[in-house]
Amino acid sequence: MSAASASADSQDWDIDGDTLREECGVFGIYGHDDASAITALGLHALQHRGQEAAGIVSYDDGVFHSERRQGLVGDNFSDRGTIERLAGRSAIGHVRYSTTGGTILRNVQPLFAELAGGGLSVAHNGNLTNALTIRRELVQDGAITQSTSDTEVILHLAARSRKPRIVERFIDALQRIEGAYAIVALTNKKLIGARDPMGIRPLVLGELDGRYILTSETCALDIIGARFIRDVENGEIVVISEEGVESIRFSERRPMRPCIFEYIYFARPDSVVNGKSVYAVRKAIGRELAREAAPEADIVVPVPDSGVPAALGFAQEAGLPFEMGIIRNHYVGRTFIQPTQTVRELGVRMKHSANRAAIEGKRIVLVDDSLVRGTTSVKIVRMMRDAGAREVHFRIASPPITYPDFYGIDTPEREKLLAATHDLEGMRKYIGADSLAFLSIPGLYRAMGEEARDEASPQYTDHCFTGQYPTELTDLAIAGPKRLAMLAEAD
Amino acid sequence: MSAASASADSQDWDIDGDTLREECGVFGIYGHDDASAITALGLHALQHRGQEAAGIVSYDDGVFHSERRQGLVGDNFSDRGTIERLAGRSAIGHVRYSTTGGTILRNVQPLFAELAGGGLSVAHNGNLTNALTIRRELVQDGAITQSTSDTEVILHLAARSRKPRIVERFIDALQRIEGAYAIVALTNKKLIGARDPMGIRPLVLGELDGRYILTSETCALDIIGARFIRDVENGEIVVISEEGVESIRFSERRPMRPCIFEYIYFARPDSVVNGKSVYAVRKAIGRELAREAAPEADIVVPVPDSGVPAALGFAQEAGLPFEMGIIRNHYVGRTFIQPTQTVRELGVRMKHSANRAAIEGKRIVLVDDSLVRGTTSVKIVRMMRDAGAREVHFRIASPPITYPDFYGIDTPEREKLLAATHDLEGMRKYIGADSLAFLSIPGLYRAMGEEARDEASPQYTDHCFTGQYPTELTDLAIAGPKRLAMLAEAD
Amino acid sequence: MSAASASADSQDWDIDGDTLREECGVFGIYGHDDASAITALGLHALQHRGQEAAGIVSYDDGVFHSERRQGLVGDNFSDRGTIERLAGRSAIGHVRYSTTGGTILRNVQPLFAELAGGGLSVAHNGNLTNALTIRRELVQDGAITQSTSDTEVILHLAARSRKPRIVERFIDALQRIEGAYAIVALTNKKLIGARDPMGIRPLVLGELDGRYILTSETCALDIIGARFIRDVENGEIVVISEEGVESIRFSERRPMRPCIFEYIYFARPDSVVNGKSVYAVRKAIGRELAREAAPEADIVVPVPDSGVPAALGFAQEAGLPFEMGIIRNHYVGRTFIQPTQTVRELGVRMKHSANRAAIEGKRIVLVDDSLVRGTTSVKIVRMMRDAGAREVHFRIASPPITYPDFYGIDTPEREKLLAATHDLEGMRKYIGADSLAFLSIPGLYRAMGEEARDEASPQYTDHCFTGQYPTELTDLAIAGPKRLAMLAEAD
Amino acid sequence: MSAASASADSQDWDIDGDTLREECGVFGIYGHDDASAITALGLHALQHRGQEAAGIVSYDDGVFHSERRQGLVGDNFSDRGTIERLAGRSAIGHVRYSTTGGTILRNVQPLFAELAGGGLSVAHNGNLTNALTIRRELVQDGAITQSTSDTEVILHLAARSRKPRIVERFIDALQRIEGAYAIVALTNKKLIGARDPMGIRPLVLGELDGRYILTSETCALDIIGARFIRDVENGEIVVISEEGVESIRFSERRPMRPCIFEYIYFARPDSVVNGKSVYAVRKAIGRELAREAAPEADIVVPVPDSGVPAALGFAQEAGLPFEMGIIRNHYVGRTFIQPTQTVRELGVRMKHSANRAAIEGKRIVLVDDSLVRGTTSVKIVRMMRDAGAREVHFRIASPPITYPDFYGIDTPEREKLLAATHDLEGMRKYIGADSLAFLSIPGLYRAMGEEARDEASPQYTDHCFTGQYPTELTDLAIAGPKRLAMLAEAD
Repeated sequence: MSAASASADSQDWDIDGDTLREECGVFGIYGHDDASAITALGLHALQHRGQEAAGIVSYDDGVFHSERRQGLVGDNFSDRGTIERLAGRSAIGHVRYSTTGGTILRNVQPLFAELAGGGLSVAHNGNLTNALTIRRELVQDGAITQSTSDTEVILHLAARSRKPRIVERFIDALQRIEGAYAIVALTNKKLIGARDPMGIRPLVLGELDGRYILTSETCALDIIGARFIRDVENGEIVVISEEGVESIRFSERRPMRPCIFEYIYFARPDSVVNGKSVYAVRKAIGRELAREAAPEADIVVPVPDSGVPAALGFAQEAGLPFEMGIIRNHYVGRTFIQPTQTVRELGVRMKHSANRAAIEGKRIVLVDDSLVRGTTSVKIVRMMRDAGAREVHFRIASPPITYPDFYGIDTPEREKLLAATHDLEGMRKYIGADSLAFLSIPGLYRAMGEEARDEASPQYTDHCFTGQYPTELTDLAIAGPKRLAMLAEAD
Repeated sequence: MSAASASADSQDWDIDGDTLREECGVFGIYGHDDASAITALGLHALQHRGQEAAGIVSYDDGVFHSERRQGLVGDNFSDRGTIERLAGRSAIGHVRYSTTGGTILRNVQPLFAELAGGGLSVAHNGNLTNALTIRRELVQDGAITQSTSDTEVILHLAARSRKPRIVERFIDALQRIEGAYAIVALTNKKLIGARDPMGIRPLVLGELDGRYILTSETCALDIIGARFIRDVENGEIVVISEEGVESIRFSERRPMRPCIFEYIYFARPDSVVNGKSVYAVRKAIGRELAREAAPEADIVVPVPDSGVPAALGFAQEAGLPFEMGIIRNHYVGRTFIQPTQTVRELGVRMKHSANRAAIEGKRIVLVDDSLVRGTTSVKIVRMMRDAGAREVHFRIASPPITYPDFYGIDTPEREKLLAATHDLEGMRKYIGADSLAFLSIPGLYRAMGEEARDEASPQYTDHCFTGQYPTELTDLAIAGPKRLAMLAEAD
Repeated sequence: MSAASASADSQDWDIDGDTLREECGVFGIYGHDDASAITALGLHALQHRGQEAAGIVSYDDGVFHSERRQGLVGDNFSDRGTIERLAGRSAIGHVRYSTTGGTILRNVQPLFAELAGGGLSVAHNGNLTNALTIRRELVQDGAITQSTSDTEVILHLAARSRKPRIVERFIDALQRIEGAYAIVALTNKKLIGARDPMGIRPLVLGELDGRYILTSETCALDIIGARFIRDVENGEIVVISEEGVESIRFSERRPMRPCIFEYIYFARPDSVVNGKSVYAVRKAIGRELAREAAPEADIVVPVPDSGVPAALGFAQEAGLPFEMGIIRNHYVGRTFIQPTQTVRELGVRMKHSANRAAIEGKRIVLVDDSLVRGTTSVKIVRMMRDAGAREVHFRIASPPITYPDFYGIDTPEREKLLAATHDLEGMRKYIGADSLAFLSIPGLYRAMGEEARDEASPQYTDHCFTGQYPTELTDLAIAGPKRLAMLAEAD
Repeated sequence: MSAASASADSQDWDIDGDTLREECGVFGIYGHDDASAITALGLHALQHRGQEAAGIVSYDDGVFHSERRQGLVGDNFSDRGTIERLAGRSAIGHVRYSTTGGTILRNVQPLFAELAGGGLSVAHNGNLTNALTIRRELVQDGAITQSTSDTEVILHLAARSRKPRIVERFIDALQRIEGAYAIVALTNKKLIGARDPMGIRPLVLGELDGRYILTSETCALDIIGARFIRDVENGEIVVISEEGVESIRFSERRPMRPCIFEYIYFARPDSVVNGKSVYAVRKAIGRELAREAAPEADIVVPVPDSGVPAALGFAQEAGLPFEMGIIRNHYVGRTFIQPTQTVRELGVRMKHSANRAAIEGKRIVLVDDSLVRGTTSVKIVRMMRDAGAREVHFRIASPPITYPDFYGIDTPEREKLLAATHDLEGMRKYIGADSLAFLSIPGLYRAMGEEARDEASPQYTDHCFTGQYPTELTDLAIAGPKRLAMLAEAD
């Protein structure tokens, strides 16, 4: 998450910013005849990780080709012309949420730089916690920065390394940065993947037709029929070349501590993240939640689509019927961007509508994945009541979010997090439910298959619930998110 | 369905045309300050009835304003400028599937004509079965036709009526046409609704802030918080003016015979069509199907999203777990329009992917709403097997489709309907399932709440399953769907 | 000029509407392999006759193809795809000024209709003086009108003719209309040209590779290397088919009375109109003007580009040096459409700038083609003085415009014509010149090669100077230009 | 001229690349309330110096705003929204020719960088002759280069300077570079102008409402009514701040040696460059040419528009009538980009057409500004003959071009320069004229007001005619113009 990133997202008609956003998804393939077309497909499968912009860089016989566009992968990387311009047998790609206002196409990745040893293109998912600090040093030392992205910092560090080979320069750079990152990088000879020392953001290694792939989630392997090989380890660099795959450790070996929000919200349910099925985890979360807080009720209703697996698990555990009490309108598209006041007031109904026949007169358990600001929950509860629900019991398939993220999830400021400012009863009143319950931290870890949270060395990055951040937060001392200039570029 | 309509639809990434398409949805409101904004919202809720083009005509103090666009409602009718250009307190709107190639914006509705007595704008859902015949007579008599739509025929007939008042002229026109139609029309004084003598296509009357609304489905009332009053009857004209609502019958009273496909596939599950909840009907269909053909299996998996309610009903009746074994990618957008060969071969995976964790090693019951050409089913079954399903039992929540439609549903030619050319075992082999079953006609009528189908006078328009068409098919003698010229207009 | 036409034109940065506009240019070719490409080139050469929209209709083996676009010909009809969609060996095309606001693409020509005997496409330059009257009758009789253009009236009249053959129907239509027109029309077998009984608007017959061409000006023949054959006569229909060219008279033979403004302003200087070189006429006008009103001065400066030939003639006759004292910026494009206030105040300088080195300290004769509202002249005189001109003597290469046009020239209302409301001294004061002179009517006729104007039967249509209109003005009784609805269409 | 710049230009329909191109024009204003709107107007007046892209950077209260677009200034910088986004009281702007293929928006200027001491934005007209050499050193030392423009090299050099103040850093940078440049730069406190030690590219200082302006040509002052103060001197830096104008010399004082092509071709005729009226110089060139090589002839015809002043001077000196024998079509726009073969063959006629009435049967002197490849001249001579010219005497208002430029003019490779490979008679035969003559070098210097060319220290940069380059050509040893990667960016 760059410092200039935005909290609003027109894509999902999220007027209130009442949601979490992840910045990016990455994909790379080495040595395949259809490298760019496959990268486009992989990015399409990762579209849920970033819908505002996408980019692909390919390498072909001495030349790097680049196409970076605002909008969906399918709208921008599906025509033959674009794919043909991205010639070459190796490519990396990136999807992202974009920044405020005019959107800075300069920040769309992959970035590229010509270093002394050759070209280097980098795509990055995650956020560094010392990028501003390093950027300040770089500028002091005569560097020119063109974008506001963390990724450019990595390029600068690699450019300034005194090591002769690009992989070594890249490692030099990684050893300077802190935070969360899953990176794919392309040189004129190699495809490189790297995952931060905690393994906060996901990165997997796959294979198609004997050619290696690096990508954020297994669903991007599935779409092209590729085979999953393994997760890239925390603190590991994977270097793919004509000689095959080489693994290099750039930080000491320690237990992985992946971001638990990938399971709760971000990853696609059909992905397997760090060896665990996201769908299975969400169902297990629903079951734990039912054990902890199943009310007297008639039916279980998910907030679609992300609440569906947890609601299924809840319904199965609670022995209640599962019903699609809320219908999602899938045609919202990139629409109603400048809504009239009439539209704005309708809010959530643009995307969701009550299925009156299913809920009228019923006591319903409403299952959602998380509670951020609560503004959407208010509207959904009211919509359920308007449609005749007799009782509305709200169940949240995660613990209360009380701390902001700094690792690539776009969370509101702390004072806007409902759970950071209200107790349970206060939240219940605010959203207007008859009862409200969150999954407990122990319940969450049970759903992950752990006996308990290891308080000394937690198995997952879970600071949004606990305040325990996995790394230093160096930049926090200097940052103000709006200081970086040149934002209004309408490229 | 106009004669020139297309069977392919890029919107849903339906490469093979293996689906049914409905041409239109309509909406109209009389006397409301936010007439155009409300119409846009209503059309947004009807977007599932037609995603290629949309139009709104408003009437303001002597002038009719019109905006007609290709693309989604939300992308085209959400900005303040467009809504402000559509000034006035009455408006009608239309969403539609579009025609071949360059798309004929001339065919985008509502259409408009100045008649001797004033302006008349018409939006139409359905298809006439004698439009070509009438068009031929009109041209012979000196009329100029600008579009290829049936709706223009209605305008011509009204224009040529010798009656003094526009409503009378409109009735004159309706008495010449045959087929299926739900029409909303706007004059400088009135909003008019009309439904064909069989009531094949739906049309409902609603109310918001004391102002009347006419629209295709109740979901368009729900989105704006309007109240459902009643269905417009078959053979009824509803005339809304400052004096209130006037009802006129233009055909003899007879039992309604609505299109059963609205329940099976077209209408949104949260709509109530002719007094029946679509969601409830679909669940009932699933239950009937389970009673008729539940196999030994481990889980029930819907083909999302349209198969979900029937699969829920099936799972509940069969006592099997319901699982989201297929994940839908909601970002397909209007995308991959000119796919590379690599993409084309991937076919269904652009939109659907297997949730391996849920289905691996399982015997699954796959529930889909209908079977048209079967090409998509082949791919879905193969995808399930690739993801490790042990057995795949395909269950279709409707009877076999063996006849084409002529009333506004875009069905393939008969020889491309799988059930018209294969027996059950042949179909099973074609799609590669371990077993295959369709809902029976009696089961379908039971799910509709009937004891049995009335063979003499069927309660529903069901010719796609039975070959019993509800009206004359006058044009069938002369039509060839491609004769109308001037198609390549890039307006 | 249709009733809904606009007086403002962003193309030439004419903020004040201080100019005359002609509505159209037409082109047609029969039986040539490159029919559409050649039509596009011909329209490009006619671009000065209308820059807001263009259209081409071609006929190919039973099907009419149509492409109609807003903007320049070169921007819209130069790519291979568009030309290939316009398949066929015969084509007609049209350039036009467009209408207010959203622009009505429905009004972009050529229009098309299917008549009983086959398709008929029509492109029209000129304006009818009884179109509204006929339109009113047509609507009364049940016709539906889709556009507001006069051309549609012709189609309706042809459609309603009881004659069996299309050419006969077309003649029937022409015999009902009055006003100015040069028409090219295309049927499935023929290319038809027609010129009104006065020959007000120009139309010429040419030939390329043995194939016939009809077009507004000879410059459209020159661009494609075609040979000029002859002018189409007033009251003549030319029917081109596989059998060759057939000439039919549809009105009694009388002397031609072409629009004199074609020579003064509209036609391109390299065109030969009705046998006279436009460039030569303009130079002759300049010479006459010098004879009538040459002041003591140092140099002659044209207002570019239209004033150049007259200024050359003036300079030669007066024995004064010709100097480019005003430089035109050719990059204005379709630009500064929504100018800021700062820009608006700069007005004329966006397009013209003073060449200080040429005019400083000089007594200059400024030669412009015509004076309409005078607002631009004010600015140009001031610009000359700001650049140091010692004296500014304004000379207008036409008589004072005191009456509006109704034949296809877009003139302001009479009260906005400077010469209709001011005497010579008043005009001089208004524009701020040291002296002002117009060409006299006798001088104009001398420049045309006539001894004198035939007052009983003028050799040219010159009502803007004389008030003597060449035809009835039937519509004037009923027209109000703004009554026609449905203008805001953003097609 | 960057190494990657293109020789083709669709703007002027220059299919053959038979023309010279200049890369840029610059404009800057300090401390004015309408800074951005005025900059847009200034750039509009400089549009002839670069039509493919434009950019403006403004500074407002701590933030630099930037808008960079492809296309004409008027099409991109005229709407209120764009101007409002460019808030602030100081701004700089740039127009440019663009690069190959997809156009690299990264190369559109002004560029911007945050240096240690604050932001620096730079716009640059000209070309450095050691940019590649410096770039190579920079990359070796860890710099990341984002664009392929020379301008970025200046930013890097300033960034790496160890001087504390930005103006000092900027001077450090200038002292490292060689070649031609007129630069405007903006910091958070100052507007800076700089002109290379030879003064090859022009730069003037002006004033409006007491506020200072720096720009390439005086025509950009005239459009806004600003007052010309003086030329910036060669080797001078002008620093404008709240304290007024400060002048700093960064190279030893020596005679200026401005590019003579500004007079012959590039500058607008109404500009005054280095104290000389461009229009007056061109007329003087025409007179010299007439003295040197006036043939027996009937009329003098300019190749419009750039040949007009020389043709006027020629006609006056030779005592021959000046006639507009070639008419230019001003609507070519950015058009016919993908011409069909039919169009391509027509070549020059898209833009120019013969005025047959003026030239038929005449012996004509055709005056053009320069001869590059000669391909257009061939077509124009043929067009004159096709239109009936009896004799065609071609006169070129400059000496033969025999050497390429490296200072910001886009010349073809040497082997494509007609005069570098043919003698006079060979050229005459190639273009098909009856006679051909160029202006002599002495004639050119006389037209400039010099007695003779100072062979030891020429008064003008004239290497294209003489091969005497004014600076070192350091890069020539290493350059190949196509090595820079990442060109296909479709930003």
